[in-house]
Amino acid sequence: MMRERRLVNRLAKALATVLVAGLAASQAHAEDGYELWLRHTPLEGGALQELGQYAPEVVAPQGEFQSATTDIAVEELRAGLANLAGGNVARGKATSIRITLDCGTAVGDGQAGFSLVPELDRPTPAFRIAARDHIGCLHGSFALLRELALGKSLADITLQERPAYPLRMLNHWDNPDGHVERGYAGRSIFDWWHLPERLDRRMIDYARANASIGINGAVVNNVNARAFMLEPRYIAKLKRLADAWRPYGIRVYLSPRFSAPRDLGGLDTADPLDPEVRAWWRAKADEIYAAIPDFGGFLVKANSEGQPGPQDYDRTHADGANMLAEALGERGTVIWRAFVYSAEDETDRAMQAYAEFVPLDGRFADNVILQVKNGPIDFQPREPFHPLFGAMPRTRMMLEVQVTKEYLGFASHLAFLAPMWEEVLDADTGRGGTVAQVVAPAGMAGVANTGADRNWTGSDFDQANWYAFGRLAWDPGLSSETIAREWNAQTFTRDQRAQDAITDIMLGSREAVVRYMTPLGLAHLMGTAHHYGPAPWVCDLARPEWNPCYYHRADAGGIGFDRTATGSGALAQYAPEIAQRWRDPDTIDPALLLWFHRVTWDHRMADGLTLWERLAAEYDRGVSEVDRLAATWHGLAPAIDPERHRAVADMFAIQQKEALWWRDASLAYWHSVNGLPYPDGVTPPPPPLEHYMSLSFPEAPGQ
Amino acid sequence: MMRERRLVNRLAKALATVLVAGLAASQAHAEDGYELWLRHTPLEGGALQELGQYAPEVVAPQGEFQSATTDIAVEELRAGLANLAGGNVARGKATSIRITLDCGTAVGDGQAGFSLVPELDRPTPAFRIAARDHIGCLHGSFALLRELALGKSLADITLQERPAYPLRMLNHWDNPDGHVERGYAGRSIFDWWHLPERLDRRMIDYARANASIGINGAVVNNVNARAFMLEPRYIAKLKRLADAWRPYGIRVYLSPRFSAPRDLGGLDTADPLDPEVRAWWRAKADEIYAAIPDFGGFLVKANSEGQPGPQDYDRTHADGANMLAEALGERGTVIWRAFVYSAEDETDRAMQAYAEFVPLDGRFADNVILQVKNGPIDFQPREPFHPLFGAMPRTRMMLEVQVTKEYLGFASHLAFLAPMWEEVLDADTGRGGTVAQVVAPAGMAGVANTGADRNWTGSDFDQANWYAFGRLAWDPGLSSETIAREWNAQTFTRDQRAQDAITDIMLGSREAVVRYMTPLGLAHLMGTAHHYGPAPWVCDLARPEWNPCYYHRADAGGIGFDRTATGSGALAQYAPEIAQRWRDPDTIDPALLLWFHRVTWDHRMADGLTLWERLAAEYDRGVSEVDRLAATWHGLAPAIDPERHRAVADMFAIQQKEALWWRDASLAYWHSVNGLPYPDGVTPPPPPLEHYMSLSFPEAPGQ
Repeated sequence: MMRERRLVNRLAKALATVLVAGLAASQAHAEDGYELWLRHTPLEGGALQELGQYAPEVVAPQGEFQSATTDIAVEELRAGLANLAGGNVARGKATSIRITLDCGTAVGDGQAGFSLVPELDRPTPAFRIAARDHIGCLHGSFALLRELALGKSLADITLQERPAYPLRMLNHWDNPDGHVERGYAGRSIFDWWHLPERLDRRMIDYARANASIGINGAVVNNVNARAFMLEPRYIAKLKRLADAWRPYGIRVYLSPRFSAPRDLGGLDTADPLDPEVRAWWRAKADEIYAAIPDFGGFLVKANSEGQPGPQDYDRTHADGANMLAEALGERGTVIWRAFVYSAEDETDRAMQAYAEFVPLDGRFADNVILQVKNGPIDFQPREPFHPLFGAMPRTRMMLEVQVTKEYLGFASHLAFLAPMWEEVLDADTGRGGTVAQVVAPAGMAGVANTGADRNWTGSDFDQANWYAFGRLAWDPGLSSETIAREWNAQTFTRDQRAQDAITDIMLGSREAVVRYMTPLGLAHLMGTAHHYGPAPWVCDLARPEWNPCYYHRADAGGIGFDRTATGSGALAQYAPEIAQRWRDPDTIDPALLLWFHRVTWDHRMADGLTLWERLAAEYDRGVSEVDRLAATWHGLAPAIDPERHRAVADMFAIQQKEALWWRDASLAYWHSVNGLPYPDGVTPPPPPLEHYMSLSFPEAPGQ
Repeated sequence: MMRERRLVNRLAKALATVLVAGLAASQAHAEDGYELWLRHTPLEGGALQELGQYAPEVVAPQGEFQSATTDIAVEELRAGLANLAGGNVARGKATSIRITLDCGTAVGDGQAGFSLVPELDRPTPAFRIAARDHIGCLHGSFALLRELALGKSLADITLQERPAYPLRMLNHWDNPDGHVERGYAGRSIFDWWHLPERLDRRMIDYARANASIGINGAVVNNVNARAFMLEPRYIAKLKRLADAWRPYGIRVYLSPRFSAPRDLGGLDTADPLDPEVRAWWRAKADEIYAAIPDFGGFLVKANSEGQPGPQDYDRTHADGANMLAEALGERGTVIWRAFVYSAEDETDRAMQAYAEFVPLDGRFADNVILQVKNGPIDFQPREPFHPLFGAMPRTRMMLEVQVTKEYLGFASHLAFLAPMWEEVLDADTGRGGTVAQVVAPAGMAGVANTGADRNWTGSDFDQANWYAFGRLAWDPGLSSETIAREWNAQTFTRDQRAQDAITDIMLGSREAVVRYMTPLGLAHLMGTAHHYGPAPWVCDLARPEWNPCYYHRADAGGIGFDRTATGSGALAQYAPEIAQRWRDPDTIDPALLLWFHRVTWDHRMADGLTLWERLAAEYDRGVSEVDRLAATWHGLAPAIDPERHRAVADMFAIQQKEALWWRDASLAYWHSVNGLPYPDGVTPPPPPLEHYMSLSFPEAPGQ
């Protein structure tokens, strides 16, 4: 009896000790967002009890069925399950469930998908993760953890998935010096300087995060490329990355500078039809593949915004792409960007890529993919889908979207981008299906928003855009709401009402940004070079299409870019049924009105308001919508950890200030142009237009 | 009995549960260095038992004795004690010790120091932290935690300390765009872009780290300054920082651009004697003080390396400094840098600051301090102390050292800098005391090595330099060994043998770098602009003193810079007894030989070797010393967490490679110059000199 009592006392003390120690440890580790959506915080209530009862035991594949990839899957499952169970894994009454990985002997490329199969009522209860290859099993393992984290019961998790697209890639506009073009989350995550000796831990966590959402490739450097990244010392660095990422199913791609044979190779030309040039690229590709047998290939920006390319030698984009494709051979893929517009071309910028590439349809090698931005200009808050989609049936085409928010408020405006991407994926091209269908043979590329900020993306909510990109590239049929709910449940809280509120914030966020920045189809009105804040008045830059005034064309007589037959004719690049729908300013979706049409300020909208009244109302609605989202967030304090709640609240303070700035500066400018009184109920911007025009931001990030 | 048994079972299960949860949580939070030396990991053995027995209870000051600063001190003590006790705070038999803060009602400036007074055998056992003001109490609280973390018993902690210097400042060469000049730890920690709305949590942790080692000021921007940081929008940002740092006793200073009255104020001149210019600065100072009543003042780099200054208007440095001093008035201090050398001045660069400033002695206003680098050139691995120290008895002078390792291997060579700073602090100027004594009326400034890398400083060991700077600025009498032991015990491990080994690594590290980079008094041999790697061959830059060849002057006839009376005469700038000691190449400390003397390659050293033999031996010894330090580190794996052990091991891999590169390239170059065979036992560098000369590093960090 005394002995028992002593034992009780000792155990009670030990428990108290451990609990206090746990508390102290948790104090030291405030929520800083580093863990992304992979937090796996302990389940609550029924879900917790159930998982505790199951006492899942992960069975590691052995022998030829084992690989670095299955090791990772097993480790992820074990740690994830332990974390989700909050330590409740050793309960006495539990039924032991064997979690098995049934994925053959090939490491594979993760194209074949996976199945999650509960076999709980067998004599030996099990849960089977089945795939044709090991990467599939890793994807399946992350999917199982996700479903559990969402509160589902093991018995109910039956999934059979295959990725919609073979390529699900991030494009990093990261320079080797650590600067990220259009990056708003600090320095580049790639520490080239210390590679290959030093592999930053973040490189593993990056691969892990990508694998958890099915991303399978990364272009590690800016498309505005430096030639020296093809030097042997960089190939050694790339190899270290590729080796680290291989078990996660992430392939390394590089942006080579097209003029590298001159810059590095000592040749006097980079002409793609020159035999020496072709030999140089072949040798370079061989050198890369000797180090990295599964090197993914090249992403090329050529003859665009000052980059060298085949046209420097009077060759076509196809000549350039095919030359590189030949160098890679069957080993890899050339991804050629369609983002081109020319200093010499006087036609509507929105039309130039179509005009340049459509004649090349069918002339690209089999291992070439054309990568096309979602819209015909440049990642604006809203654009119509790019007319190239569907227009080149004999060319594989990939959709390029921007995860980083160059034109959507950097990292200090909340804009959940899934609704924007859903809009373009679901757009019917009128030429053989939706955009999602047109790009099915290739895939999706997202210009990454990662940086070395501890939370990866500058603000916590921008993690959702990384997550959404991966999920949509895996399954473009997912709704924005599904993705928003998945993400916020894993990232913030399992409180249902808080989830509803956060989902509401996310789903409304992008449209609010469109409203206070570029409503009704306006575009490209931001400050020059830094792309920050409003500058619709800018009209004196050397090239016409650099100027905001080129895009809005506002004067006393009206506003908007006439792209119908009476104007630039860009509308004719779309399939007839689409062009037909957009031809009439009275029937076009008002969201695209000023993109395709120039209308008078007193143009009557379907809702009875004049254009000027409606435009002002849109700005006001954008501003008040942000105020509403911020207020919703403030009310969520009890459900969110204080660190991240405060960080997001601070971000909203910036967004609210800047939303008002966009509204005020834009209205003041339009007012100065149209000479009309401000519509009834619209508060005139307090300072004069000159105030907004005088602002300058030489230190704006991302330039 | 059954009830007891059930209780035992339940407790055992709960304990297991908690242990597993703790394990899982700790897996998620790997050691990433963010906590610096403030980890406060649980004590072990006797120290743990003792602290548990004392059950310290922190008594918070109330009413007029309470402030934001005492709140912080109380919180630090409570969390720190709980962490050190590993949760053993609730033991039954413990004697409760009251930890009291006895620090009056003034928040103060932390100049008056603190006492730690154990009063354990009183009727009500207590431990008293006494100070004249609240900042003193905060310093005392951190000191108490440090002593406990070092394993001392509460009963034995009796300290009475006062800082040696009033100013203990970090200088950040951080640009407002986030780039850090000579920064090797990622982007700037200052997120100007999102201030004032967003205050990054790191800004609090930064102030906390500084307060823990007694640092009391920070110049938040680069001395190569942008004028716009004086705009109202930046004053609002500065105010947010100042408000956040005030409770920690950290005052904000700014580097203003001297030409700001022209750049911002619309004046056509920045002439310091112009009444309008003087009025502009006064108004600007008033504007700053209206926002930040305890603004520290200005740090100015003028007429140096292209920066504007009073000489642009034929005025003196004193005219410039005094004009700003008048604008600040009694509210703040002007810190004027003595780092000047001129494109037009043909004399030895090492002599120019002395020549320029000594005539101005006594002409600076009372609130002006002259900030002088440790040596007369520029933060080289070894320099003699600066001849200005002691040479301006009527001018307050501050010592500037570089914490960031611009010339000592960036963040990938281990070089503990305390021995270097100890060397200069202890140097007898021959003019009224040591350097430490000469700067006593002002203090020390350290060019910071902080960045947004998770571990703050790029590599774990560079945290020790931040720590050492703060400790030496508080007490320049501390030995390097004391500081090394304090730091590594708090940062890495309490294992005594591991501490000995790490201390050995740290104390030997700087001399190793000197040996493989610039032995025997050589200096400034690094690559142009980026300051990375060896480039002694460079001799074609526009200004003579930009060229490594200017400093080494090697040819077939000899090597070294004659600064005696037969040469530049720089030696005469030192006090006669010092100059006397250094005048003779046979008696000067060999570590300074080639700094002051040009000698022939066959010059016989005291150890009997020729200069050429000794030089080669120094390189070899530097390389083998690094190999030895790395091997010692590898052996410490059992005592160090795997994350940081691996990170430091990776760093050593880079250092070993680059030490060899410095040795090989330097030897190959000297060999090409002197035409002598390599000394016996010296392995000739494998590749030819041309190889080293062909290397280029356009993306080197920190430029």
